[in-house]
Amino acid sequence: MSAGRRRRWYSQKSLYNIIFGSDTTAGKRYDITLLIVIFISVIVAIWESTPRPGQTVKTILTILEYIITFIFTLEYAVRIYCHPKPKDYIFSFFGIVDLLSTLPLYLSLILPGAHYLVMIRAFRLTRVFRIFRMFTYVNEGIILLQSLKRSLSKILVYLLFVLILVTIIGTVEYVIESGEPGSGFTDLPSSIYWAIVTMTTVGYGDITPVTTFGRMLSALVMVLGYTIIAVPTGIVSANYINETRKRVKNGRCPRCGKKVEEGFKYCPHCAEKL
Amino acid sequence: MSAGRRRRWYSQKSLYNIIFGSDTTAGKRYDITLLIVIFISVIVAIWESTPRPGQTVKTILTILEYIITFIFTLEYAVRIYCHPKPKDYIFSFFGIVDLLSTLPLYLSLILPGAHYLVMIRAFRLTRVFRIFRMFTYVNEGIILLQSLKRSLSKILVYLLFVLILVTIIGTVEYVIESGEPGSGFTDLPSSIYWAIVTMTTVGYGDITPVTTFGRMLSALVMVLGYTIIAVPTGIVSANYINETRKRVKNGRCPRCGKKVEEGFKYCPHCAEKL
Amino acid sequence: MSAGRRRRWYSQKSLYNIIFGSDTTAGKRYDITLLIVIFISVIVAIWESTPRPGQTVKTILTILEYIITFIFTLEYAVRIYCHPKPKDYIFSFFGIVDLLSTLPLYLSLILPGAHYLVMIRAFRLTRVFRIFRMFTYVNEGIILLQSLKRSLSKILVYLLFVLILVTIIGTVEYVIESGEPGSGFTDLPSSIYWAIVTMTTVGYGDITPVTTFGRMLSALVMVLGYTIIAVPTGIVSANYINETRKRVKNGRCPRCGKKVEEGFKYCPHCAEKL
Amino acid sequence: MSAGRRRRWYSQKSLYNIIFGSDTTAGKRYDITLLIVIFISVIVAIWESTPRPGQTVKTILTILEYIITFIFTLEYAVRIYCHPKPKDYIFSFFGIVDLLSTLPLYLSLILPGAHYLVMIRAFRLTRVFRIFRMFTYVNEGIILLQSLKRSLSKILVYLLFVLILVTIIGTVEYVIESGEPGSGFTDLPSSIYWAIVTMTTVGYGDITPVTTFGRMLSALVMVLGYTIIAVPTGIVSANYINETRKRVKNGRCPRCGKKVEEGFKYCPHCAEKL
Repeated sequence: MSAGRRRRWYSQKSLYNIIFGSDTTAGKRYDITLLIVIFISVIVAIWESTPRPGQTVKTILTILEYIITFIFTLEYAVRIYCHPKPKDYIFSFFGIVDLLSTLPLYLSLILPGAHYLVMIRAFRLTRVFRIFRMFTYVNEGIILLQSLKRSLSKILVYLLFVLILVTIIGTVEYVIESGEPGSGFTDLPSSIYWAIVTMTTVGYGDITPVTTFGRMLSALVMVLGYTIIAVPTGIVSANYINETRKRVKNGRCPRCGKKVEEGFKYCPHCAEKL
Repeated sequence: MSAGRRRRWYSQKSLYNIIFGSDTTAGKRYDITLLIVIFISVIVAIWESTPRPGQTVKTILTILEYIITFIFTLEYAVRIYCHPKPKDYIFSFFGIVDLLSTLPLYLSLILPGAHYLVMIRAFRLTRVFRIFRMFTYVNEGIILLQSLKRSLSKILVYLLFVLILVTIIGTVEYVIESGEPGSGFTDLPSSIYWAIVTMTTVGYGDITPVTTFGRMLSALVMVLGYTIIAVPTGIVSANYINETRKRVKNGRCPRCGKKVEEGFKYCPHCAEKL
Repeated sequence: MSAGRRRRWYSQKSLYNIIFGSDTTAGKRYDITLLIVIFISVIVAIWESTPRPGQTVKTILTILEYIITFIFTLEYAVRIYCHPKPKDYIFSFFGIVDLLSTLPLYLSLILPGAHYLVMIRAFRLTRVFRIFRMFTYVNEGIILLQSLKRSLSKILVYLLFVLILVTIIGTVEYVIESGEPGSGFTDLPSSIYWAIVTMTTVGYGDITPVTTFGRMLSALVMVLGYTIIAVPTGIVSANYINETRKRVKNGRCPRCGKKVEEGFKYCPHCAEKL
Repeated sequence: MSAGRRRRWYSQKSLYNIIFGSDTTAGKRYDITLLIVIFISVIVAIWESTPRPGQTVKTILTILEYIITFIFTLEYAVRIYCHPKPKDYIFSFFGIVDLLSTLPLYLSLILPGAHYLVMIRAFRLTRVFRIFRMFTYVNEGIILLQSLKRSLSKILVYLLFVLILVTIIGTVEYVIESGEPGSGFTDLPSSIYWAIVTMTTVGYGDITPVTTFGRMLSALVMVLGYTIIAVPTGIVSANYINETRKRVKNGRCPRCGKKVEEGFKYCPHCAEKL
């Protein structure tokens, strides 16, 4: 290995520590700066969409967008450059998000709608957890995700059932209401959409039944949705409780999941009271 | 038994394996083809109801509907023909659904509204579970249904209570609001409907109180509904948790419910971590 | 005791068995007839309020109302007459409901609004449980009520907190939105009402924020309400689960609460699987 | 210490017992009177905001406001005077609330909007717990708060995820719907606001999708929100159940948390059935 290559490798490594790590002061500062830039870029995109700003503001926002895209493009290049295994980074979740964060401006030169891809940058904000060392929080998110994952198959079975139910309810309501003048139940898709809006208790009110029979069916659907809302909640709760209990039984901290010696009053890893 | 009869029986049996079974390659292919046809038929029915399509599209959809009905009628006949005990099939749940799936077009020649019975075909989509061997999922659905069944009696008692409550609240709100000009509380059914819409937190907004007293009662109803929403959720959750725990206690897998030897780390029937 | 008095007493007793009891065939028939009359009376009251019926229908409904009131008045008199301790009946819950069920027509001669008191008759429908011997259901209702009762104090503390929160949120939103032209936030009561409508996820849409700041606060309130909705549900669920577990631990059936010998697979009182 | 100083100290102490304590008859009376004044002041503020009152009523309300502010100012001064450690009181939660309760009228002479700060007085109503000796209730509130606090970190992680999700969904819906004439999706903030309104099942209906694709995404968001609503509920429930169980295991009353001897059937501190 030549001295020049070694020097380059070190500089890569120190760059890597700053950009990918968050243990050094420089690394922390870099991460916080990056977060601020991401946040600004999201705000710029949101602001740009509002019809209020005058010509001057619009020009400033466009310039800002150009600058931010330049920063992100540069950063993406440096990340690839300094990573020991560039391919691992490029095909990781954050690698793809970072790439997509740079594209919108380039794409918007070809496709007009592509401009809104800037909002993918919002995903980069999840890096906030790493910076503030919220590992415990992330760990809790993992228990949650596990509970959700374990519940997913049940919830999917349940959703298919709901979808079929909603199709049939929508059809019946359509048959009842479609004749009425000024009715919102103009076709089957609208009626199925209404059934979903009603059953999930969202209730926009853009499509509402007006006949007595339609309202009676509607009331039934609401009370049904009311009972049905209980099902996924129950599943996730049950799995979450079981997950927590299993940890305690196996002599682990219910919060961070790490092994804890018996007799300890607080988890030595996350200060959870046992 | 004559040789001809025996040959016919074998052909029936192989047809049975293809149509009712899903273990052979032919059986799987048949099931997937059928699912696609069912799905297309539902989409056709939904599309037909929209006012947008021109004459050409409408003609195509009508022809498609004729073809699909022909396929379903033929399939129903073959199913009866090849089933060893045709009566068992005809009076089974899927037998009735299959029959009803063929009828709409014939009925629509007599009754105009009957056309929408095609949506019953949506039930046939539940066959998807069988094809993709989602037995575990179905099994989970069974625990869920058991939890719901065990909770049903409690939920029914509770619903009767809610119905009486809603009737009385609707009446009181009607007495308060009906005098107001432009009020939606024109009669008792509307007011009871409003009470249900409010209590289930759907809140369409087609009927809303405008007087101060009406709004105060309305706020009370919302907060009440808020507390009441807790009841069925609690019941189903509790039953679900107990159901799962009972299985674990009896040395069974909490997911698929099958007997598991002690010391196993994963259920040998569904790979559930124990 | 004279023979005449004794005879009268027996006749009272047999009447008591018919009217108050539901064990004899006559008692059951009486109860079902009464339920039908109550149900008809509620339907008549609801129908009367609708603007559609012509003069003939209205006359019929009025006559029906007179007949039903006469039946209820007579029944109330007979109930007092045949009860061994009339005072116990008169001041019982159902005694008061029965009395109030007879009054509306008489009161409506003096007060116009009093007519709608007929809806109190809806409470009489709860007798349905007694007739169909749904003791187990009632028993489950009792566990539920106990869970609710045990949770009540916590829910009350919680509601006071919500009330104060809602007052403050409503005020802040009022300060933000009231200046806007065409805003629904015309005064503080409206704004507090809006806060309740939003927080309970009812969301009528009769009052909605239009300014950016108003919408941001509004979004915060929704997400808050979202988290807050978890609280009473959690409390009732937890109490319900504990209540059920306590029963099992004490060697009682989790459903009907009666003592069950160890080793039994089904509760001998309500057929609950143990 | 001089005799004069001691006398003053006693008079301070007796004032302290009346104003801060609620054990003596005088203390109780004082607290109830204060509560009534606070309640009146909140009602006055709400009433003042309504456009209905005539000039006479307005004058009376203004005078009442002056009187109440005078009472609160005086009371604040006396509280500081009679507290043994005035600084402790001034910087306590209730000290700040008491100060803010006196300011609105003075501030409204300078700033017009400041008038609505009177609603902070609503916080003073929480003193009601102390007066009616609802220590048990407060204690239950504490378990609840502990459950919430323990759940907070998880809920925060979850909220960040929801926020990012809502931003992306709002953007996609904006791209789909913004072209439609008369669409409510005029800019990104409106669309994100719509996503929150939909996902929390509030569903005002001020902004609703009209295109088929928009409605399909909308339906997905609702069902998603439906599943997501399960998460915080499950967390709080689980923590609450664990909190209660931990107490029972440690030989404590599940309600008030105090140590209870084994064999007791009722908690000697709060009469909870064990």
